[in-house]
Amino acid sequence: MATTSLSLLQVANGNLPGHLVKMGLDKPLYLDSGKSLSPFVVAYETYGKLNQDHTNAVLVCHALTGDQFAANPHPLTGKPGWWDHMIGPDKILDTNRFFVICANILGGCLGSTGPASINPSTGKPWGLDFPVITISDMVRAQIRLLDHLGIDKLFLAIGGSMGGMQVLDLASRYSDRIFAAVPIAAAPRHSAQNIAFHEVGRQAIMADPDWCQGGYLNNDKCPTRGLAVARMEAHITYLSEPALHRKFGRRLQGREELAFGFDADFQVESYLRHQGSTFVDRFDPNSYLYITRAMDYFDLSEGHNGNLAQAFVGTDVRFCVMSFSSDWLYPTTESRTLVRALNAVAANVSFIEIETDKGHDAFLLDEPEMHRTLSGFIDGCALQMGL
Amino acid sequence: MATTSLSLLQVANGNLPGHLVKMGLDKPLYLDSGKSLSPFVVAYETYGKLNQDHTNAVLVCHALTGDQFAANPHPLTGKPGWWDHMIGPDKILDTNRFFVICANILGGCLGSTGPASINPSTGKPWGLDFPVITISDMVRAQIRLLDHLGIDKLFLAIGGSMGGMQVLDLASRYSDRIFAAVPIAAAPRHSAQNIAFHEVGRQAIMADPDWCQGGYLNNDKCPTRGLAVARMEAHITYLSEPALHRKFGRRLQGREELAFGFDADFQVESYLRHQGSTFVDRFDPNSYLYITRAMDYFDLSEGHNGNLAQAFVGTDVRFCVMSFSSDWLYPTTESRTLVRALNAVAANVSFIEIETDKGHDAFLLDEPEMHRTLSGFIDGCALQMGL
Repeated sequence: MATTSLSLLQVANGNLPGHLVKMGLDKPLYLDSGKSLSPFVVAYETYGKLNQDHTNAVLVCHALTGDQFAANPHPLTGKPGWWDHMIGPDKILDTNRFFVICANILGGCLGSTGPASINPSTGKPWGLDFPVITISDMVRAQIRLLDHLGIDKLFLAIGGSMGGMQVLDLASRYSDRIFAAVPIAAAPRHSAQNIAFHEVGRQAIMADPDWCQGGYLNNDKCPTRGLAVARMEAHITYLSEPALHRKFGRRLQGREELAFGFDADFQVESYLRHQGSTFVDRFDPNSYLYITRAMDYFDLSEGHNGNLAQAFVGTDVRFCVMSFSSDWLYPTTESRTLVRALNAVAANVSFIEIETDKGHDAFLLDEPEMHRTLSGFIDGCALQMGL
Repeated sequence: MATTSLSLLQVANGNLPGHLVKMGLDKPLYLDSGKSLSPFVVAYETYGKLNQDHTNAVLVCHALTGDQFAANPHPLTGKPGWWDHMIGPDKILDTNRFFVICANILGGCLGSTGPASINPSTGKPWGLDFPVITISDMVRAQIRLLDHLGIDKLFLAIGGSMGGMQVLDLASRYSDRIFAAVPIAAAPRHSAQNIAFHEVGRQAIMADPDWCQGGYLNNDKCPTRGLAVARMEAHITYLSEPALHRKFGRRLQGREELAFGFDADFQVESYLRHQGSTFVDRFDPNSYLYITRAMDYFDLSEGHNGNLAQAFVGTDVRFCVMSFSSDWLYPTTESRTLVRALNAVAANVSFIEIETDKGHDAFLLDEPEMHRTLSGFIDGCALQMGL
């Protein structure tokens, strides 16, 4: 466990491939909590080339446990990027045409400033002294990165799940900096059930004595057991019941008969345990707390007296809203609420619910109808932009 | 924590009000695992009087975290019985007419033999030496109790959730001992998603160092943090998303604004924490492991080459199958599968899906349509039985 946490600590502080930019020494990053970060680091990857007019930039926003390695191998696991099938030459996000940027979110643990980063005022990891952040704070950091890269206006911002929340926040508060927006399997606010599942995950982490009240990195420990439980629980919510049934049913794991014990009898148990135990090697437990909290706090209507449509008044962003029929974590009803709000302000919005039994995680998968829809939308927008 | 576990230990070993019967010294209770228990104890409550012909007995089967105190105060919490509104004079299960029996399940922790009971061969609590049990084993213990009480044939067996599983097992394997059966919000098998949620709960308990590899009772400890996390997770699955939204939405708990911290900001968090922290005072963590395992193992079709209908061939039991429209843990599709199997063997079955947004836990609530349906079914059956 110590090795894992040290390795995470190193990675969280920039000991990894890719780009790192330190910003905010002159101009702090002001946060919704009233606190600020100065300096702060954003770690990011880019794919393709920025054109001369700086008009072909695509921002890919990652989800809760995602990272900037969207289309190249993960430095800790060696696995292909989480959107490898989406980003590259002649792929949906065609790197022959577009300059694709993906940054580790603020609060993350893969190089961008987060709770495992060194607090410059103490020389030790922030831990729970790190300020609680919001989706808007993450977007503020993304905007600062765009400033740094000299990108006034994105051609497209796209992301699934929490990535979609960032896309929505960006489109709402920085509509002049974005031409088109694709929030996938997202929602304009986090529901009570979403908050409840996150709270259980957080409690699992905080119940682990190795969490050390958030100070595990200073104690050469890591609450891996609690984090694994949190991941296992969350993973169930990312899949649909039919998908779990199709993939695993009640099939036994490496045995012919029930074992009458508490080892993993069923394949689904074995799968979940694997999900939990591999996750802890690549993710910082405190980051998990902070990011889930940011998602819980997300409610686009909040700054508008509960009127979601007001979040998009006068927008000229082109929206393509996408949901999945079997996604019960961010169900289609949430996307419909969003689309109704956009319609109420005469926004340019198309909406599609994609039929699939793969649940919330479908946005990560090679889902043909999603690809066809995205391809059409992006081509149409590119034509309008002359790209 | 020590006080709690000792108190649970005392209660698990019969230091509580109500009836206890020790059986099996002459005739062991043979279990599906191949092991046996001799002796074993069943703790039970009764309401109403057994008639002269012994034909008016109703067996109420409780759910995972229920107990025999269905219609009288709980000895640890002092709260009213979990089906207090259902059992009593002139209520649905009318104690002026019926003799209602409710027994703590085998593997439970409220007097019936379970992992917190004293293992007679060591003089210490069983812990993980307790044999893994099944729903059929629970039913075997119920049958032994009926034998003890001199009841050849029940008028009715009724129960929700795991209680419904016992009703189905009883109706399948002891059809000559039951006139009518009401499984509510149940299923003929535990789904992959159900198993997955249970596995997370078990992992939360087993990840708690105070679990002591199952030996906490011998170490004056109790894995209360792990058990609380398991309970919180399970509790989400007992409610529907609309019910959570109606009850809590995104309302804050005792504050006007977000606190930017990890205390319970939202009412739903506060509610879940309360559910977790009160549960540990009344439930044994190892019991939770054993009972969830028994539920996971439940698949009525298993002994019949996967053909569920074969489990009911030739039955003359009257079935009333009930599901709730917003129950996503034991959805209506599962009840329909059961009803189709019963129809395939020309069983006497009526089925109703009750419209409610209250989710799985609706079976515990004062749900008017459920009451009306039960009332009609029970009156009809009583007429047939001349009661």
